[in-house]
Amino acid sequence: MTLDSEVDALRRVPLFRGIDATKLRLLAFISDRTHFAPGEELCRQGEEGDSAFIILEGEADIRVSTPDGERTVARLGQHSIVGEIAILCDVPRTATVAAATEMDVLTVSKDDFLRLLKEFPDMSLEVMRTLAQRLERTTQDLAAQKASGAAA
Amino acid sequence: MTLDSEVDALRRVPLFRGIDATKLRLLAFISDRTHFAPGEELCRQGEEGDSAFIILEGEADIRVSTPDGERTVARLGQHSIVGEIAILCDVPRTATVAAATEMDVLTVSKDDFLRLLKEFPDMSLEVMRTLAQRLERTTQDLAAQKASGAAA
Repeated sequence: MTLDSEVDALRRVPLFRGIDATKLRLLAFISDRTHFAPGEELCRQGEEGDSAFIILEGEADIRVSTPDGERTVARLGQHSIVGEIAILCDVPRTATVAAATEMDVLTVSKDDFLRLLKEFPDMSLEVMRTLAQRLERTTQDLAAQKASGAAA
Repeated sequence: MTLDSEVDALRRVPLFRGIDATKLRLLAFISDRTHFAPGEELCRQGEEGDSAFIILEGEADIRVSTPDGERTVARLGQHSIVGEIAILCDVPRTATVAAATEMDVLTVSKDDFLRLLKEFPDMSLEVMRTLAQRLERTTQDLAAQKASGAAA
């Protein structure tokens, strides 16, 4: 893929909406683009986390280990960001992320990611929105599980 | 409470760590400080949300309605921010927040809150960290509930 088509792909990611073309070229240049086949893992719960992933194509399952084995708690699609929790909170990976389909993924290092957030308030707001939406969905799922657990 | 002691209280909130004294004075001046008795609601799920709350003293329960009634899904303590999801995502309140103890709460309007986030990247990062931590905890709770539901 040429740098220009890479920049075109980045431009379609809502997270990068507020970032101008020159910076997007730089981002495309400094970040890695990786292909994952279904079942391959982007990261594993408990490991050190030193990068965030932006899904350019495909879908990923978010799995959390419990005393009774791994549970899939969410599925993320195209243009989602994932793996940002370990970076923001300085903790090991809080979940395993596995490709549910063929995937193209942009890997941004922790330092570059934090620098982008500091420099682009619009990107920060978009990350906050993403986290808030995901928190809202997970909270609703939790309430529903609690209700069905109590009813069982 | 004098403006100075108000500023002192704000200075102890991690969210406002990166904000200098002059701006904190302005924030104390433009925001409302409200007392809530146990059981009183800061906001109700489904209502329009036009402000965020910062807990200066006390604790609050986060309740989500399900087909089987309201479920308490989390408790937030001193210096937590709450009510920011509706503001960030432009959606109605996603949960009911009720005082679990006597509470002192700082109410910041949507416009002021978004302006602060744009102006102070450190505050943005802190909000992201808070959301990420809360998402992580909720995801673990959801996985545990799913596991115990499956075992039942």
